[in-house]
Amino acid sequence: MSSLRLVLLCLGAFLPLGPVAAASATGPVTAPASVEQWGLFEASLTGPADGNPFVDVRFTAAFTHGERSIEVNGFYDGGGIYRVRFMPDATGEWRFVTHSNRWALTGQQGSFQVTAPAKGNHGPVGVRHTYHFGYADGTPFRQVGTTSYTWIHRPAALQEQTLATLAASPFNKLRMCVFPQSHGSKLMPPTLWPFVGTPRQWDYARFNPEFFQLLEKRVGQLRDLGIECDLILFHPYDGDENWGFETMDAATDDFYLRYVVARLAAYRNIWWSMANEYDDLRTKTEADWDRFFQVVRDADPYGHLRSIHNNRRIYNHHQPWVTHVSMQNGAALHDAGRAEIYRNVYQKPIVYDEVKYEGDSIYRWGDLSALEMVHRFWAGTVAGTYVGHSEFFGRPHDVVWLGQGGVLKGESPPRLAFLRKIMEEGPVDGIEPIDQWSDPYARRRTPLGDGLGEPHVGGQAGEYYLVYFGRAAPRSWPVEFSPENLVDGLRFAADLLDPWAMTVTPIEGTFTLKRKDDNTFADAAGRAIELPGKPYLALRFWRIP
Amino acid sequence: MSSLRLVLLCLGAFLPLGPVAAASATGPVTAPASVEQWGLFEASLTGPADGNPFVDVRFTAAFTHGERSIEVNGFYDGGGIYRVRFMPDATGEWRFVTHSNRWALTGQQGSFQVTAPAKGNHGPVGVRHTYHFGYADGTPFRQVGTTSYTWIHRPAALQEQTLATLAASPFNKLRMCVFPQSHGSKLMPPTLWPFVGTPRQWDYARFNPEFFQLLEKRVGQLRDLGIECDLILFHPYDGDENWGFETMDAATDDFYLRYVVARLAAYRNIWWSMANEYDDLRTKTEADWDRFFQVVRDADPYGHLRSIHNNRRIYNHHQPWVTHVSMQNGAALHDAGRAEIYRNVYQKPIVYDEVKYEGDSIYRWGDLSALEMVHRFWAGTVAGTYVGHSEFFGRPHDVVWLGQGGVLKGESPPRLAFLRKIMEEGPVDGIEPIDQWSDPYARRRTPLGDGLGEPHVGGQAGEYYLVYFGRAAPRSWPVEFSPENLVDGLRFAADLLDPWAMTVTPIEGTFTLKRKDDNTFADAAGRAIELPGKPYLALRFWRIP
Repeated sequence: MSSLRLVLLCLGAFLPLGPVAAASATGPVTAPASVEQWGLFEASLTGPADGNPFVDVRFTAAFTHGERSIEVNGFYDGGGIYRVRFMPDATGEWRFVTHSNRWALTGQQGSFQVTAPAKGNHGPVGVRHTYHFGYADGTPFRQVGTTSYTWIHRPAALQEQTLATLAASPFNKLRMCVFPQSHGSKLMPPTLWPFVGTPRQWDYARFNPEFFQLLEKRVGQLRDLGIECDLILFHPYDGDENWGFETMDAATDDFYLRYVVARLAAYRNIWWSMANEYDDLRTKTEADWDRFFQVVRDADPYGHLRSIHNNRRIYNHHQPWVTHVSMQNGAALHDAGRAEIYRNVYQKPIVYDEVKYEGDSIYRWGDLSALEMVHRFWAGTVAGTYVGHSEFFGRPHDVVWLGQGGVLKGESPPRLAFLRKIMEEGPVDGIEPIDQWSDPYARRRTPLGDGLGEPHVGGQAGEYYLVYFGRAAPRSWPVEFSPENLVDGLRFAADLLDPWAMTVTPIEGTFTLKRKDDNTFADAAGRAIELPGKPYLALRFWRIP
Repeated sequence: MSSLRLVLLCLGAFLPLGPVAAASATGPVTAPASVEQWGLFEASLTGPADGNPFVDVRFTAAFTHGERSIEVNGFYDGGGIYRVRFMPDATGEWRFVTHSNRWALTGQQGSFQVTAPAKGNHGPVGVRHTYHFGYADGTPFRQVGTTSYTWIHRPAALQEQTLATLAASPFNKLRMCVFPQSHGSKLMPPTLWPFVGTPRQWDYARFNPEFFQLLEKRVGQLRDLGIECDLILFHPYDGDENWGFETMDAATDDFYLRYVVARLAAYRNIWWSMANEYDDLRTKTEADWDRFFQVVRDADPYGHLRSIHNNRRIYNHHQPWVTHVSMQNGAALHDAGRAEIYRNVYQKPIVYDEVKYEGDSIYRWGDLSALEMVHRFWAGTVAGTYVGHSEFFGRPHDVVWLGQGGVLKGESPPRLAFLRKIMEEGPVDGIEPIDQWSDPYARRRTPLGDGLGEPHVGGQAGEYYLVYFGRAAPRSWPVEFSPENLVDGLRFAADLLDPWAMTVTPIEGTFTLKRKDDNTFADAAGRAIELPGKPYLALRFWRIP
């Protein structure tokens, strides 16, 4: 957020707003004179501090750019200060005018210049090509996620360490909670709370601005690291602490959601996750979750991504307010053939946000090997889906990345960095599963074969192929592709990729494809690629002139 | 259908209908005096044959049993004959009264006795326990399906052969079409058509009763064989014939649907399949399909099962009018871990109605080995889902079971009979996948293992376990189960099942389970079961006192 601010004196000469009424005389607007596109513009005003400003005062602003006008909710930030934030999506002059049921906050006007986005600012992420993501400026967003639920509820030094770890990590999306969780809270009790009051005795009608200031500071820092923040709005982890965030009434739930959205929607890196393991939060009904989505959607002028994360019962992701699927499934990344199933069901991007965790937990959800975690990312990738990481190392009450942040102890992150690089070198339109039902294992009637099936192939047919062998360890692979988008004579170069060793080994020569039969194009010279006979390898092919 | 009929003279003494108005004098009702519960009651009346009775005449009847009254659509059957059919769901006296916009057909009354269902009549099939099916009398329905799309459009002798084949087969559900298909129609052209007229020149406002009489005769014969009829109402197989069933307008589509439902809903074995490969029928929109479901639902007084079958684009089976999922997926039965994914998505019964076909087709959708077909049924079964068979043997224009019926040439049917027997000996509440995400392969961090994972286990936790090894060929299996519903000391007996050889080999002795760790109960004596080291085997365990 820009530190350059100036007081906009609401004079006609300075703000040529035409027919708009002159601003009231009660309070000046504090706001920057310029902001970059998709940056965070914030205007502050002083208003009433008496009564309960969170409840009593309605405060919005209309932001105008040419013909377009966008109505945005402001919020009360304590100490008589009201703020309204805005993420402009176009350069040039924007104007705004406030509206309120209090004289001090209504009719205040201003304008600001929106400059081109700075390097690294690609705008918010949205859905692209049905199954993928992209930034607003057209740059693809290849999600490589991780989760650290409640790092912002831990001691400041640990929070800083978490940020440093993220800065050096491959992750470009972090799932994190607003509310604290019981796990680890004996060791490191939360000190800042979202409501005024004390646990189990909250004044649910009054937010604690200090908490939200910390939250948004962290969201902003993630943004500056190029990390999307998938903010988890509810979760079932109050546990024995029974703080009271799981049992708020419906009006409080909605009041809380609108406040969070008013504060955070202008952060370009925000995503809304209605819940983690929503089905374990037994105090809500399916209708509540439907409503939460709609409350958030209606309050967010930018249409940030919205989803919900399950444990055993899967939410109806067909609902129109779900932008992408946030899936927990501990077995679906076993192979790409499983991973792609949800894609075809929902026809939306699939993010496997929880696939079990790398770790040494006594619990089965936290004891994946690093190799298995890396395999799951590759299986998901060639299936045209996206995967999330986290880890759980240490005894239950130690500092684990999943719950508290700190440092990463596992061996998968460098390999996920390698995968991210491969993804970034891949097709800009994303990786699609190719020839999904080919299943030559069944077709060739070799039932006593190696049981591993053929490799799964993802890519952009005719242009780019990522061939992942998973657990199979063949000694050679005949270069064969499904006919989609192929014609005789197309040429391809290839690399052997080792996802664990993180090596890229060019394959000598090139491959010229030729139709072999109805279902196959093969190398014209019948060339196969020799392989080292170990599992978890991949080949990539890209078309050359 | 009972051949015993009598003329019900509409006299007050004979029909003590209390306050109901006396019947009109214009026409007697022909109807049986009694029918078994869930049998087919039919009342016939003579009415106007002029104009277009299909369009001009509204004809319904209200059937009353005690306090309940059910309104049922009648239909015109040609030659001045109007019929209304009814499937009573309770024994005792039922009364009816007709309503029409023609004097001859309105106010006609009668009553009949409903007797207990005969042996083999279990009533219509509905959804049970979320994921399973059951007959109305409580008997489980374990679906073992097949498909023969247009057998009723083939020569009479071939139709009879098809029925004889079905009678000797393991199949208890048949998918079949109302409309003909182009495949095979050069060799055996259709001779009876659903509309009056000639191909491409139909009078879409007039049905051909003779065709529907044949259709319902066949549906009744399937019923008498204990076979459910999953009737496919639309399909994209007009092909080069371009008969004109794919391009009817919306009003004709609905008119057709209501006529079919009026004629067939009283057959207890009818299921409604809106389409085969609905997404390939490019003349309809998603909204059309939604409407078709609702038209059928609203016209069917019995709530027969309703679904829709896809090719590549999956219908939104979350829609409330979908009773169960009819899925085509050529790869989802690769293993039980894939098969169970849709179950958790939709929380409805999953029927894999097309998993590719056993056969020798040049097309990949018709060249499964029998062994693979049998594997797919077993994978689906332990996943708590149901599977459909068909076969495609012979050159493209030969008589194939899939399209024309006749005889079965494949090797899977006897094995599917074996599986059906195993299912029928299994739990009445159906088989549930057990410990779905156990995935010990990933857990044990043995990434260079055999790549096959552990067996998939289905059953009823604590009572019955079906352990299917799929493509894995272990030499022994330690008896270990997930803790759900287990306590120390429960005893189990076991058999080794060979799905291909169709053998049941009792395992000597019994197994007494004891908690081993948080996730496992094992045999107290640490006993493992020796296995023959070949793939596609199963073990079943059942609790003994």
